[in-house]
Amino acid sequence: MAITFYDLCGRDAKRFSPYGWRTRMALAHKGLDYDLELVKFTEKDKLAFSGQKLVPVIVDGDRTVNDSWAIAEYLEDSYPDRPSLFGSPEGRGMAKAINGFVNTTIQPLLAPLIIADILEHVDPADLGYFDESRRQRFGRPLAEVQADRDAKVDGFRKSLEPYRIVVKDRAFVGGDGPTYADYVLFGTLQWARCTSAYGLVTADDPIHSWFERLLDLHDGLGRSEPAA
Amino acid sequence: MAITFYDLCGRDAKRFSPYGWRTRMALAHKGLDYDLELVKFTEKDKLAFSGQKLVPVIVDGDRTVNDSWAIAEYLEDSYPDRPSLFGSPEGRGMAKAINGFVNTTIQPLLAPLIIADILEHVDPADLGYFDESRRQRFGRPLAEVQADRDAKVDGFRKSLEPYRIVVKDRAFVGGDGPTYADYVLFGTLQWARCTSAYGLVTADDPIHSWFERLLDLHDGLGRSEPAA
Repeated sequence: MAITFYDLCGRDAKRFSPYGWRTRMALAHKGLDYDLELVKFTEKDKLAFSGQKLVPVIVDGDRTVNDSWAIAEYLEDSYPDRPSLFGSPEGRGMAKAINGFVNTTIQPLLAPLIIADILEHVDPADLGYFDESRRQRFGRPLAEVQADRDAKVDGFRKSLEPYRIVVKDRAFVGGDGPTYADYVLFGTLQWARCTSAYGLVTADDPIHSWFERLLDLHDGLGRSEPAA
Repeated sequence: MAITFYDLCGRDAKRFSPYGWRTRMALAHKGLDYDLELVKFTEKDKLAFSGQKLVPVIVDGDRTVNDSWAIAEYLEDSYPDRPSLFGSPEGRGMAKAINGFVNTTIQPLLAPLIIADILEHVDPADLGYFDESRRQRFGRPLAEVQADRDAKVDGFRKSLEPYRIVVKDRAFVGGDGPTYADYVLFGTLQWARCTSAYGLVTADDPIHSWFERLLDLHDGLGRSEPAA
């Protein structure tokens, strides 16, 4: 019985959720097929069966799992014969900590740099909801939040240092092959790539080359989503 | 031929370097004996042979290695038959990223909370150097830096969240046994435990129970250094 994957979509079915991308890469890593259900910001009633309102959600037989990290653990446990997402039991806990660090340190520094650009890629039906909810979160109009990004981008770039020191001398965080620790930051940067043309990372940054490698993985899955 | 381990010491040979503790735990994890050379802040000439001025440094036969992360990798590669510090090749890269995250996010939030307390534990010969160099780093007197710590401690506690979500339902970051990913944050918190009585972590915080487990490891090695 196939998996059903509920992912966020924007205008023209564009998919840019950072958490959705983590799950999308994890499913590809495991080589799992799925039926896709696209959900707009204002269609969260489609997720009511999951008991909460956030994508990603997967349904696998009689199991419903939400939260990208919980989905990664579920896939690892349910499909142990497929390529491992964590490499080892030790890697699972470490990847969870890295997932937490990216969510709490890198992603909050990225959001203000692209938040107004994202508006261009939100489905017209969601525009009012998105603009108002994010305006409340940031406490001012999104164009204003983003206006001084040239002054803030260095702080964002510095926040990537823990990944940079790792991937400057190996292909992926875990070594020769990708693991979920790669997909975590990949999802965050892919969110930006799909919604904003702003130059977040310089071409000579090891993060840039690493991200290009991630875009190539799984038959160019990441690259298949057009850049903004 | 035994390893020589150069570690920082303060008043009464107290050892509180966060990086020194990472190396000390790594050496214990590998079950390696060593000769100890204590180095005060103003005795950095003792390290001249290593081509730089910072502890920890180890000398193993004809190899000299400085920087706690480089030492961890050296020990893992040179003593592959001893218990692994990383659990797997994937875990090595992930632990390196975690080492980077702790250094750049948690440690800078901790330093201002304890920096004046540390003065009490610095060797009298080092006091002038320590006070002046740290005053320059923080841009004001250390007592002043520390004065508003009650307002800042919540930010520090929040920064521990990536570890907290992992150790709230497992004994160590990597699962049942400790890895270098544990020793990284342990070193940082042990630095505080040895130099300050300030209540950084509440008793009901999963980080507290995890830290107690770390203090018990390797025959109570961490606990053998008196708390401030």
